[in-house]
Amino acid sequence: MIEISAALELIARHVRPLAAESIPLERAVGRVLAAAIASEVDSPPHDKSLMDGFAVRAADTATTGVDLEVIETVLAGQIARKTLRPGTACRVMTGAPIPPGADAVVMLEQTTVMTQSAEEARVRVDVAVGPGKHIMRRGESMRAGEIVLPAGTVIRPYHLGVLAEVGAATVRVTQRPSVAILATGDELVAVEQRPGPAQIRNSNGPLLAAQARRIASDVRDLGIARDDYQSLRERIAVGLESDLLILTGGVSAGLADLVPRVLLDCGVRQVFHKVSIKPGKPIWFGIVDRGSASTQKLIFGLPGNPVSTLVCFEVFVVGACQVLAGQPSPVRSHSYGILLRDHAVRGDRPTYWPVRLIWQTSGQTGVEPLPWRGSSDLRCLADADALAFFPSRETPYSVGEIVPLLTLAEY
Amino acid sequence: MIEISAALELIARHVRPLAAESIPLERAVGRVLAAAIASEVDSPPHDKSLMDGFAVRAADTATTGVDLEVIETVLAGQIARKTLRPGTACRVMTGAPIPPGADAVVMLEQTTVMTQSAEEARVRVDVAVGPGKHIMRRGESMRAGEIVLPAGTVIRPYHLGVLAEVGAATVRVTQRPSVAILATGDELVAVEQRPGPAQIRNSNGPLLAAQARRIASDVRDLGIARDDYQSLRERIAVGLESDLLILTGGVSAGLADLVPRVLLDCGVRQVFHKVSIKPGKPIWFGIVDRGSASTQKLIFGLPGNPVSTLVCFEVFVVGACQVLAGQPSPVRSHSYGILLRDHAVRGDRPTYWPVRLIWQTSGQTGVEPLPWRGSSDLRCLADADALAFFPSRETPYSVGEIVPLLTLAEY
Repeated sequence: MIEISAALELIARHVRPLAAESIPLERAVGRVLAAAIASEVDSPPHDKSLMDGFAVRAADTATTGVDLEVIETVLAGQIARKTLRPGTACRVMTGAPIPPGADAVVMLEQTTVMTQSAEEARVRVDVAVGPGKHIMRRGESMRAGEIVLPAGTVIRPYHLGVLAEVGAATVRVTQRPSVAILATGDELVAVEQRPGPAQIRNSNGPLLAAQARRIASDVRDLGIARDDYQSLRERIAVGLESDLLILTGGVSAGLADLVPRVLLDCGVRQVFHKVSIKPGKPIWFGIVDRGSASTQKLIFGLPGNPVSTLVCFEVFVVGACQVLAGQPSPVRSHSYGILLRDHAVRGDRPTYWPVRLIWQTSGQTGVEPLPWRGSSDLRCLADADALAFFPSRETPYSVGEIVPLLTLAEY
Repeated sequence: MIEISAALELIARHVRPLAAESIPLERAVGRVLAAAIASEVDSPPHDKSLMDGFAVRAADTATTGVDLEVIETVLAGQIARKTLRPGTACRVMTGAPIPPGADAVVMLEQTTVMTQSAEEARVRVDVAVGPGKHIMRRGESMRAGEIVLPAGTVIRPYHLGVLAEVGAATVRVTQRPSVAILATGDELVAVEQRPGPAQIRNSNGPLLAAQARRIASDVRDLGIARDDYQSLRERIAVGLESDLLILTGGVSAGLADLVPRVLLDCGVRQVFHKVSIKPGKPIWFGIVDRGSASTQKLIFGLPGNPVSTLVCFEVFVVGACQVLAGQPSPVRSHSYGILLRDHAVRGDRPTYWPVRLIWQTSGQTGVEPLPWRGSSDLRCLADADALAFFPSRETPYSVGEIVPLLTLAEY
């Protein structure tokens, strides 16, 4: 049995990052940038008006109530043809380029239009404005060549605006693995079946498939394998067509726990088996490595209890996918919260415990440990927002102590 | 101009919840439950062993080193055929039903198997165990009939395990709206084009499409409409085929701001125009309501500046979608964070400001306001994690003050 940190180091050492691929911008959400995105434009591309109003020479407005000749109207998307001389103004709309000669904008609401005809208009300016007022300078938001998003960024929906602005119609991202999922166990029946005596439904398959869609190019649910050598061997052979095979069950020390043996017989090399983590101790990890990222296979044998499966997925499988995506470390980043209740955990292994988060008006994340009955108590997850991490120690945890949190993905 | 709360109340009053539909479990992530999910099974379905080991009568183990006859082996998925009498034990695997007569389990590691043949085996128990040890009682995690997830729950990936366990192969969820997106403005060119003088790329279209995929059954990006009546009218007519039409640009007071007029001419009824919010003041909202949820259309005219577009989407469009999904209120829930820097906002309107979040080991969410240059500064969003809400007030905000946060969706 090894420590969590040692297991993650072994993952870092044995997993090779996947290659990059180019994809259209509209499919980029959730993907990891393989190369930095630099702007190829200044933004804004010209000095621009931030208001509907009149571009003026600031000096002209020193006299309150000055009367200016309106020489032109410039809308967004247009370019001024005339240069502002003293005593003149140019009507501009929000986003319009500032005409040459102008150095400030007066809001429409602070002016009075005196006459208006096809040929002539005059405007009275009711306030004094300083140079630069209501103008955004060319390149003030972003300069051509500037890095907008560094390599390694996970692309969020709200990033798509800036990516569009800099013309990133396609983006270079790390490939994602194809994933196969195989539940094992004689006690399992499919979700749509009614369990007979001593049977339960296969909850790990749908749980893992939903989790895997976050990280996979493609998810194959291979259903249920029985606890016999031949059934397992056939299904595992199919699973090894994918880049990442996740099994649940059959990795413990029981009589029916054949998974490690069958994996070895299928040519998978064991990297580790058993980690000091609760729940999830029996986790098994192995690889098939023929020397390149495109031929490598990762195989996780997760314990069959569903909460163990979830914890191992979050800590180890997502960690391995961080390495596949080119990130330097498989260690997940944790946030922190404050315990709202005393909490005792058995001190023998570091424990991830399902918790509810309650936002405090103190700006703290309140952590309420759920009444969880152990690794097979899946019901508890219905109420959970996160897993709180309790390092192994003898003394109970008290209200007010700070604990690291692994937030559970919402999509 | 109305307050944010008044605008949200108008949305609550004018938007009808959509009908429910049944979908397969594997497509349920992100959807909102239209009806509570109750368990139709006890979980576990029988008293079960939490360990690989031996089911015993606890009373037999009072004498340390007692020697018991092994009468049977029960794996997960099997049922014991024999009843435990005093002096006997039953080999059980994790998840296996406890045989009648047994009331505790001794871990394999705390036993010594004395003889083993096809006909006979004896085991020495090296510890005393109390009744119930390593046994999970039938129904301890969940009872048949118990509500597992209430109506209104947003289904998360980690919920799929418990939904599968209770046999929810299909789930009743609220329908989602079809969404059309239309950017307007003579200054806009498509992402793949190189902007000419006075032109910028259409960043709002891709930004909104990515945001809308979170909430929509289907997203149509209608591209760019020019600032002329006929171009707008034609595109808006197409957009009104969807349940929800989101426009950007053309809703302010400028000469080219034709959107409200064209919408009215298309039969859309204005609900509100202009809200005291920064950025996003010119927002326009209207409906087409022919008396039923299935024929209603919602139309948002969002301001053209991209950060205004994002803020209005998060506050008002997502709020309206909460009502469509049957939730009682369009008010978004906020979390809280602590300011890591002094921050001044203009006091005239409540402001949503892009911020970076930094997890503090105090359990607090640290809030770092970004150097944001206003509603057209999209670059800033590349570094943002959330929008912090600053109610309008005269005095600047100081380090250590608590501010509400609207977290930006990651997927």
